[in-house]
Amino acid sequence: MFRFTPQEQYTMPAHFGPRTNKMSSGWYHHVTSLVVSYRTDREKLAAYLPKPFEVADDATISVVYACNKEVDWLAGHGYNLISVNASVVFNGAVDHLQGFYTLVMWENLTDPILMGREVQGIPKIYADIPDHAMVNGTWRVKASHFSHGIMAMTVSSLVDPTLEEITGLQESMVDKDNWMGWKYIPNPDGVGASVTMPTLFPAETTYSAVQIGTGSVAWEHLEWEQNPTQYHIVNALADLPVLEYLPAVMTKGSTNLAVEGKPVRELK
Amino acid sequence: MFRFTPQEQYTMPAHFGPRTNKMSSGWYHHVTSLVVSYRTDREKLAAYLPKPFEVADDATISVVYACNKEVDWLAGHGYNLISVNASVVFNGAVDHLQGFYTLVMWENLTDPILMGREVQGIPKIYADIPDHAMVNGTWRVKASHFSHGIMAMTVSSLVDPTLEEITGLQESMVDKDNWMGWKYIPNPDGVGASVTMPTLFPAETTYSAVQIGTGSVAWEHLEWEQNPTQYHIVNALADLPVLEYLPAVMTKGSTNLAVEGKPVRELK
Amino acid sequence: MFRFTPQEQYTMPAHFGPRTNKMSSGWYHHVTSLVVSYRTDREKLAAYLPKPFEVADDATISVVYACNKEVDWLAGHGYNLISVNASVVFNGAVDHLQGFYTLVMWENLTDPILMGREVQGIPKIYADIPDHAMVNGTWRVKASHFSHGIMAMTVSSLVDPTLEEITGLQESMVDKDNWMGWKYIPNPDGVGASVTMPTLFPAETTYSAVQIGTGSVAWEHLEWEQNPTQYHIVNALADLPVLEYLPAVMTKGSTNLAVEGKPVRELK
Amino acid sequence: MFRFTPQEQYTMPAHFGPRTNKMSSGWYHHVTSLVVSYRTDREKLAAYLPKPFEVADDATISVVYACNKEVDWLAGHGYNLISVNASVVFNGAVDHLQGFYTLVMWENLTDPILMGREVQGIPKIYADIPDHAMVNGTWRVKASHFSHGIMAMTVSSLVDPTLEEITGLQESMVDKDNWMGWKYIPNPDGVGASVTMPTLFPAETTYSAVQIGTGSVAWEHLEWEQNPTQYHIVNALADLPVLEYLPAVMTKGSTNLAVEGKPVRELK
Repeated sequence: MFRFTPQEQYTMPAHFGPRTNKMSSGWYHHVTSLVVSYRTDREKLAAYLPKPFEVADDATISVVYACNKEVDWLAGHGYNLISVNASVVFNGAVDHLQGFYTLVMWENLTDPILMGREVQGIPKIYADIPDHAMVNGTWRVKASHFSHGIMAMTVSSLVDPTLEEITGLQESMVDKDNWMGWKYIPNPDGVGASVTMPTLFPAETTYSAVQIGTGSVAWEHLEWEQNPTQYHIVNALADLPVLEYLPAVMTKGSTNLAVEGKPVRELK
Repeated sequence: MFRFTPQEQYTMPAHFGPRTNKMSSGWYHHVTSLVVSYRTDREKLAAYLPKPFEVADDATISVVYACNKEVDWLAGHGYNLISVNASVVFNGAVDHLQGFYTLVMWENLTDPILMGREVQGIPKIYADIPDHAMVNGTWRVKASHFSHGIMAMTVSSLVDPTLEEITGLQESMVDKDNWMGWKYIPNPDGVGASVTMPTLFPAETTYSAVQIGTGSVAWEHLEWEQNPTQYHIVNALADLPVLEYLPAVMTKGSTNLAVEGKPVRELK
Repeated sequence: MFRFTPQEQYTMPAHFGPRTNKMSSGWYHHVTSLVVSYRTDREKLAAYLPKPFEVADDATISVVYACNKEVDWLAGHGYNLISVNASVVFNGAVDHLQGFYTLVMWENLTDPILMGREVQGIPKIYADIPDHAMVNGTWRVKASHFSHGIMAMTVSSLVDPTLEEITGLQESMVDKDNWMGWKYIPNPDGVGASVTMPTLFPAETTYSAVQIGTGSVAWEHLEWEQNPTQYHIVNALADLPVLEYLPAVMTKGSTNLAVEGKPVRELK
Repeated sequence: MFRFTPQEQYTMPAHFGPRTNKMSSGWYHHVTSLVVSYRTDREKLAAYLPKPFEVADDATISVVYACNKEVDWLAGHGYNLISVNASVVFNGAVDHLQGFYTLVMWENLTDPILMGREVQGIPKIYADIPDHAMVNGTWRVKASHFSHGIMAMTVSSLVDPTLEEITGLQESMVDKDNWMGWKYIPNPDGVGASVTMPTLFPAETTYSAVQIGTGSVAWEHLEWEQNPTQYHIVNALADLPVLEYLPAVMTKGSTNLAVEGKPVRELK
C-alpha cells in the first residue's frame, strides 16, 4: 500500500514517491532574456485583475522572453518562455505589495508548466517558442500553437546603458521584484474551485550583461478554430492598446527560483 | 475588476474568462487504440496503490496506446496517449467499485494534460509519442522524453475475434469500465496538499473495429540525467514483472469523455 | 577500400552501401488527401515554367495535401505533404505529354525530401505540416516554417459525387496523371549545374473513398527575416491570382510510387 | 517562360529564381562545439573510404557536435549537427591533402541539409538533436530519429589547456583543416550516378574559448524497423571499435562557411 510521507513534496502521479531534489537546485545558470514593456489602458487592464489586485500607477504591461539553458532541476536541459505581466499593487487584508501580476506565461516544455501551475499558481500554458533569432543586430522571438501564430517580438538598437538608465532599470525591475499570480484548481466536476487564492513566488537574478534598446510586440487575433484553448487569451492581449513603448531590455545572467528562506506563499 | 462567475468552468489563467464549450463536445471521433495487458506481481503492484484501492484478483497491468483524431474540444486536432492502468477494487466507506486505477498517462499535447490533471485528477505527463507505425502486419508504438526512450510496444498477428473472445473482452474491458485516479494538488510551498482525493472519471466508447492478437511492452531503465522528471516512474514500471501476457487488442472507434449524467466525482 | 557496385542504388552517404529495398515496396497504404484547384493568370503562371513546358488550356493550379500513413519504405511510419502543381503540356523534341508540373512540394520529413530531390528531381522542401484537423464538417490544413505560416487550406461541404462528377474527376485527375519536375543539381561551387533536366515520375493510386466539396487556399506574404529560404516561393504563389475555384476533392486510398515497368526518367 | 541566368546560384525549385545572398554571409556567429575523438581499427575504417582516400596514420574518428546560433543565411536562426569524420589522406592524380573525410553528418534542420548535399556533397541526413544539456560539469548530447536513439556523447572534466595542449590542438585541428566528402547524385531511375566525385569544402573558425577534458560516444545498434533509412549507417559506426579515446575538446567561437577565395571544389 502506498502512503504519503509528511513533509515530502509530491506531484501527480504521487504514488511513485516524492520529487527528489538531491541532485538539483533552483538555479537556471544561463538565461538570456528580452523584455518589451508598454503602457496600456488602465480600465481595460483592470478588467483582468481579481481583487485585491489593482493596476499600478504606471499601468504597464511587461512581455518577457527568456531562453533558459543549463537548468539544474531539468538535469541541465533548458526551455523557453514568454510571460505577460501587469504592473500591480496587491492591497490585501495583510499583505501590501508592489510588483507584477502574471497574466499568462507560455512555455515550450510541459514539465515546468505542471510545476508552476500546481505548486506556485503561475498561469502557464504551452506554446512552440523557438530560440530567438538574431541577425543584423535585431533579435526576433515568435510563439505559436496548433501551427497558428500567437505573437512576435522584436528588439533592436541595443546599447550599453548609462548610469541613469541602470538606475531606471533598478526601479522598474528590482524594486518591484514581487511576482504574483492567482492559483485556481477546479473541483473534479469542473464547476467551482478546490483552490482559489493569490500567490507570491520569489526569484533572484544575477546579471552578466544588460543592454537597452527599442522593441515592439505584435499580437495576433485568432478564431476558436485556430487555437481552441487559447484564442480568448491572445485576443484579450491583442485588445489591450499599446499607448507608449518603454525602453526594451536584453539581459544575460542566472536565475534562482528556489530562494532560501523565501518560500512560495499565499497572499492574504 | 475581474470577478469569478458561479457555475462557470475556469482553469488558469482564470481571469480571461471561463472555458467556452459552445462549439465543442466531449467526443473524440476517430480513436485507434492498442491494448497490451499482462499479469504482474501482486505485492509489487500493491506498493503503488493508496488506500482504499486494492489490487484486483487478476493483478493485471493494461498498457493502452490511443491515437486520437478529430477531437471536438481541440477544434478537430488530435493527440496520442499511452496510459498504464492497474486492475483494482475501490473499497471506500461509501463507494465499492471494480475498475482501473491509472498509474500514469503520457500524452504528447499539453492542453489535455492540464485539463486531465487539474479537473479529473488523472496523472498525465508529457512524452513524445509519434503516431504508430504499421508494416508487414506489425504495429509499433514508442514513447520518449528529453530524447530518451521510455517504452516500446508491439502488437501483431491481429485477427477478428471469435464470439467467445468478444465475451472475454466484454468482461475485461466493459464490465470494469470504471477509470479512477488520485487527484493531488500541493500547497504553494510544495509541502503537503491542498487537494488529495480519489476520483472517478467516466468514458463511453463505440467500436467500429476490434481485433485480437499478441503484444509486448519493453520498458527502459533510466538515470536521472536521462529523464529527470520521470525516471523514477519509468523504473518503477520496468520493475513490475511480466508474469504472463494476455491477448492484445486493437480497436477503432469513438470515445466520449463528457458522458451525460455522469460527472467526474470524488470517490468516498 | 569502398567500391561502388554497378546496378545498385546509392544516396549520400554512399560509402555505407546501397539502399536496401528487400523489406519494403513503393506502397503508401493509407493516404488521405485534400485537393483544392483554381484557375489562375496564364501569363503569370508561364513565368515559372522552363521550356519546353507550357501552360495547359485550363491554366489551373492544384494544391494537394496528403496525409501518408503506413509507408512501406519508412517501415510503416508516415509523413504529410503539400504540393503545388501547374497543369501543363510538355512539348519536347521527343516527348509530348499533358499533366502536372510540380512547382514546389513541402514535406514534414527529411528522408523523402532527399530521395525525391536527388533521384526524381521533385522540388521538395521542408515545412511543419501537422495532420489535418476536422471539426463540424470542415477540414483544415496548415503549413509553416521557422514558426511563420506559409499557407492554410480549408475544405468543407463534402458529399459523395454524382456519376457526372466522377467522370469529371477522371478527366482532370487520371487522364492527366503525368507528374513532372525539373531536376537541378548545382556544381560544387554553386554556380551552374551538374544536372539540369525535366523529369517524369509515375504514381498509381487506388481509392477507397472520394468526396467532392468546396475549398480555398490562403497564402501568406513573407519577409526574408520570417522564412529566409522560402519567402520568395511563398510570395510567388501568393501573387498568382485565384480567378475561379474548382470543386475541391477529398480522397482516401493507397498510392504506389514504384510502378512496375515505369521507371522515373528524363523527358526529352 | 522561365530562363536560367548564367552565374546565378539555383537550387530546386529553381524556377522561382536564384538564391539571394544580399542580406546574408557565410558566418555562424555563435557556435558551441564538443569534439570526441578516438583511434579505431584501420582496416575496418578503410572499408568506408572510396579511392583515392586513405586512412591517415593516426586512424582516428572525430565526432563533432556543434550548436549553431545566429546563422546569417538563416536570418539569425540556428541548428545543431553531429558529424563523424575520419582522418584521411587524399592521394589524387592532382591533389594531395591531409584532412578529414566526413562519413556522415546529422543535422536537425532540413535547409542546410539540402544545401550541403546538393552543392558541397556533404553526406548530411536528418536527426533530432536537442541543444546539449549541461549539469554538474558534464555536457551531454543525444541524437535520435523516428524516436529511436542514434548515439549519446558525454564530455566532462573540462579545464583550460596548457600551452603544450594548445599546440597539440593546433596540429590535430588546424593543420589538417581540410574537410572532404564524396558528392553522389543518382540518375533519375536511381541506378548509377549523374554526379560522383570527391569534394573539398573550406571553413574558417575563430575561437573565443577552448577547453580540454574527457569524453565518450555510445552508438546504438538498430534494426531496419527502428530507423529504416539510417540503421545501416549507425550500425557501421557502432562496429568501428574504440581503441583509445583522445582528449575531448569544447570550443566556443564563430565559423565562416563561405571563405573568400576558397570556393568548394572537386578534388582530382
